Amino acid sequence: MEPMRVLLLGAGGVGSAAVAIAARRDFFEQVVVADYDPGRAARAAAVGDARFSAVGLDASTPGAVAAACREHRVTHVLNAVDPRFVMPIFEGAFAAGAHYLDLAMSLSRPHPTEPYRRVGVKLGDEQFAAADRWVGANRLALVGIGVEPGLSDVFARYAADRLFGRIDEIGVRDGANLVVDGYDFAPSFSIWTTIEECLNPPVIYEHDRGWYTTEPFSEPEVFEFPDGIGRVECVNVEHEEVVLIPRWVNSGRVTFKYGLGREFIDVLRTLHKLGLDGTRPVRAGGVEVAPRDVVAACLPDPATLGDRMYGKTCAGTWVRGAGKDGAARESYLYHVVDNAWSMREYGHQAVVWQTAVNPVIALELLAEGAWRGSGVLGPEAFDPQPFLDKLVEYGTPWGITNR
Amino acid sequence: MEPMRVLLLGAGGVGSAAVAIAARRDFFEQVVVADYDPGRAARAAAVGDARFSAVGLDASTPGAVAAACREHRVTHVLNAVDPRFVMPIFEGAFAAGAHYLDLAMSLSRPHPTEPYRRVGVKLGDEQFAAADRWVGANRLALVGIGVEPGLSDVFARYAADRLFGRIDEIGVRDGANLVVDGYDFAPSFSIWTTIEECLNPPVIYEHDRGWYTTEPFSEPEVFEFPDGIGRVECVNVEHEEVVLIPRWVNSGRVTFKYGLGREFIDVLRTLHKLGLDGTRPVRAGGVEVAPRDVVAACLPDPATLGDRMYGKTCAGTWVRGAGKDGAARESYLYHVVDNAWSMREYGHQAVVWQTAVNPVIALELLAEGAWRGSGVLGPEAFDPQPFLDKLVEYGTPWGITNR
Repeated sequence: MEPMRVLLLGAGGVGSAAVAIAARRDFFEQVVVADYDPGRAARAAAVGDARFSAVGLDASTPGAVAAACREHRVTHVLNAVDPRFVMPIFEGAFAAGAHYLDLAMSLSRPHPTEPYRRVGVKLGDEQFAAADRWVGANRLALVGIGVEPGLSDVFARYAADRLFGRIDEIGVRDGANLVVDGYDFAPSFSIWTTIEECLNPPVIYEHDRGWYTTEPFSEPEVFEFPDGIGRVECVNVEHEEVVLIPRWVNSGRVTFKYGLGREFIDVLRTLHKLGLDGTRPVRAGGVEVAPRDVVAACLPDPATLGDRMYGKTCAGTWVRGAGKDGAARESYLYHVVDNAWSMREYGHQAVVWQTAVNPVIALELLAEGAWRGSGVLGPEAFDPQPFLDKLVEYGTPWGITNR
Repeated sequence: MEPMRVLLLGAGGVGSAAVAIAARRDFFEQVVVADYDPGRAARAAAVGDARFSAVGLDASTPGAVAAACREHRVTHVLNAVDPRFVMPIFEGAFAAGAHYLDLAMSLSRPHPTEPYRRVGVKLGDEQFAAADRWVGANRLALVGIGVEPGLSDVFARYAADRLFGRIDEIGVRDGANLVVDGYDFAPSFSIWTTIEECLNPPVIYEHDRGWYTTEPFSEPEVFEFPDGIGRVECVNVEHEEVVLIPRWVNSGRVTFKYGLGREFIDVLRTLHKLGLDGTRPVRAGGVEVAPRDVVAACLPDPATLGDRMYGKTCAGTWVRGAGKDGAARESYLYHVVDNAWSMREYGHQAVVWQTAVNPVIALELLAEGAWRGSGVLGPEAFDPQPFLDKLVEYGTPWGITNR
């Protein structure tokens, strides 16, 4: 195989953590870190390792992305920028003949008349529409390979392969007990993305009904997370797993619930009520600006909060059905990162580190040939065992609790 | 007495409503409506009555205000612009030998080190510092003569004169059940100003302690408003009555609580928590913009909402102590305006109409000689009876409920 040369787009929290993680591995020849802000790219690439270089790049057009791929002889594009830029990067990688990985899929658009009942354009629909082209070109677009989507999908496939004979429901459940010292309110993940996913109509899959939507924050439940995190209120949120898992794993129902907690839900509801979640520019103080950009600008950059953050974050997949022996079974496959550990070991906070480790593992599996494929594929399209083995090898174990 | 000639500064909601109210009275010779925007002044003055004229005027310097007073032989200046301009208008009127009335007093500045415990510069301090000059010139500055401050102070004096032998507490309480059709959230007054007054440290007076401050939104209580408005959650807010009433009325304690309601309080708290109340520009989406301006831009302009507004607004003064007979007594003196009535009768929404009627009545009492005085005086320095009689005569009765 030709040596792997990666164009890593986005030197934010996740991109920077991916550099720190990849720097300890030897499966690649070059990682070019690209960001709209060249200084930010340079800071992320400055890990004292000549295999990392930095460029400034505006990822909003396929042409610019393709040109960067050609200039740096890129074999794999890893997209770690916000999901508005999925399509130009996805198309730019394709145009340049590179393989492609992302952590979030092309955006949804609500149903025009029944947004809280029916799906409109679903997450990833634009990408899946191009699947035949990618197969034809013998190129792989591995979509949704962060932690959620990503590791959560790997867990779903593992459960189907190894643990269950019949699956009635798969529910991805994400919760944390992280707190940030010195701030009244400091989300540990991009508020722009959080607003996007939490205020869109949540999507649910049912075998007999297909995909449908509900009101935001629907079906609240208190989920008990392992490793001392404990009980957290979770609500339905639009997420890629719900559109990915049913394509490769047979399940009666698939949901995603996010452990936002009461305070965060209230903040999101208020932003929505005042129109401050909007992405269409408004005229204010003599300039045109999108309200959501102003909300993001007022909050601290989550990537800078690691030193003031305490606690653990948990991602995982809860599965209910019958085991291989036919007996009723309920299991939660999970991965926990303690912020104190990720800060000490990598200098990156738990949430971004947990997201970043997965695409690095995937790249390593692709470099080694353990994972291979073409077309537009989710993580559950691949054998989960080598992925989970790598996770342990990277020093960050996963677990199962049976209920 | 010489004929009354008024310079009305500010042709916004309150100034325009004051014109509509004064046009039905005959106590004055001339009202010159002045605004920074000459077109807005002309629109407000266009009531088909030759006693009203319009001029453009920048009220930010005393010299410009004094020149306009001299040019139009003004006897009384009525200041209905935003409180940032109180001092130049107050000084300009004095320089021209005119009497002066306003609806809000000179601004406060928080205590530099203990903003939520001690007062710094209080509302009106700059004006009261000039009181001796006004007495010496035999001119009157009647400060805070809108509805709150204004009518609320008249109620306090009435309670002391007629109803109570001993007053333990005077609490101005403002609440409404106004709703605006077609919006999830549409404040009926400027959100910019509401944020300003609600996030300043609220001031409280106690006989044994003097004036002191608390945290914003302190001492929440549910107050029962009359006339079908019902129970509304009220919190402490910085307001002029707390600095005016104790100067002329003996009370153990004076507070002002605003019936913002739970939803509005939550919105303001959330804006503050996220830094979206800030007036210092932040960099967002490639431009510099003050977050508070973006919040205001996302909401509808309250001046345009009168036709879509329903409900009533109530201003009043709650008094607790002992009656003239020595028995425990608790009374709420109040004034309610139904938006349907003020729109039908005057074409102005309830909140601005209720503010505007009071300075017109005060001018009429001054013209008739029923109220007279010199120096810097609050509404509670005068006999309340003729004022309350005029309120009834103007077709907008007041009431008392005993509890």
